[in-house]
Amino acid sequence: MAFKTLTPGAMLCPVPAVMVSCASPNDRPNIITIAWAGTVCSQPPMLSISVRKERFSHHILTESGEFAVNLVGEDQLRAADLCGVKSGRDIDKFAACGLTPVPVPELAFAPAIAECPLYLACKTQQVIELGSHDLFIAAIVGMGVREDLMDDKGRIDLQRARLVAYNHGVYQSLGGAIGFFGYSVAAPDVLARRMQELK
Amino acid sequence: MAFKTLTPGAMLCPVPAVMVSCASPNDRPNIITIAWAGTVCSQPPMLSISVRKERFSHHILTESGEFAVNLVGEDQLRAADLCGVKSGRDIDKFAACGLTPVPVPELAFAPAIAECPLYLACKTQQVIELGSHDLFIAAIVGMGVREDLMDDKGRIDLQRARLVAYNHGVYQSLGGAIGFFGYSVAAPDVLARRMQELK
Repeated sequence: MAFKTLTPGAMLCPVPAVMVSCASPNDRPNIITIAWAGTVCSQPPMLSISVRKERFSHHILTESGEFAVNLVGEDQLRAADLCGVKSGRDIDKFAACGLTPVPVPELAFAPAIAECPLYLACKTQQVIELGSHDLFIAAIVGMGVREDLMDDKGRIDLQRARLVAYNHGVYQSLGGAIGFFGYSVAAPDVLARRMQELK
Repeated sequence: MAFKTLTPGAMLCPVPAVMVSCASPNDRPNIITIAWAGTVCSQPPMLSISVRKERFSHHILTESGEFAVNLVGEDQLRAADLCGVKSGRDIDKFAACGLTPVPVPELAFAPAIAECPLYLACKTQQVIELGSHDLFIAAIVGMGVREDLMDDKGRIDLQRARLVAYNHGVYQSLGGAIGFFGYSVAAPDVLARRMQELK
């Protein structure tokens, strides 16, 4: 199969679409939905988000040096989309979306979103100006998981969270499990058992 | 709903699991599967990948200053998983996985993977040591889309690519479209038409 070459674009897919919540001493809590996010380090755990300078949240992120990343399940998708297209200059997004801010122990200002499946409390370590977007590289200093997503063995069951993926402008639900890390080299009995558990 | 606080980890989900292909004057082409990847800038288009220093590909990436990011469809998932757990020190991954290297016009060494839906040709601009992983920040300088993914209007139809998401150790197919960017504020007729197109 041949390739058609096209003008390059930001076509890494699928990516997460997360709600980033932030606040500062001078600003009420705000939410900005971000698809330009990624894990950047396992130990210590770190992630990055990229934000345009002209976004209302940009100065809050810069001034406070912290934020919370809230994963988005299907039940939060409409709110997430709204928080991606509307500006916190014009509306109180928590109120407009019926979302509940909850304090995060590790953060001074930024609340998490009570309705979301999981939050990651982040402290910015470095900001790099790249062009349209500034890259915020942050340490993940705290984590909270909605209690209904913990299974009876005390593990996180993210399958119950019904997370959403963002694929070239389209939000998609996650379909069935089709493998797990290492499945290509798993022994037949391990493969059968794990895939059964994931059903 | 309350949160259970846990030791923080790299729990941003879902993320892409992409095959990064690379080569250098001294090394045959290799493939490393990476889930710690993200878009970092729209204009100019840029992405980042994070790689452990001890991975065989690390020195190839450092020496060549370039790589190709290949999106993974369901048909490439077994190969992608294998390229995440095996080392290029021990095997020729292109041969082992039955994958075909194809030259990328913008790159000197790194080939793309012919079987994958889409490749992004990347030139590294900056490497930041974070801990377990080094962050490679790169410009996207070229792009190729498998010809069968172009629709009859000359647009990319990524729905046909059957891309895979990586969700806390589990590979999942993408399910149905449940929205599009801006759907929460779309006029009823636009909403109805677009959602119909996405079916």
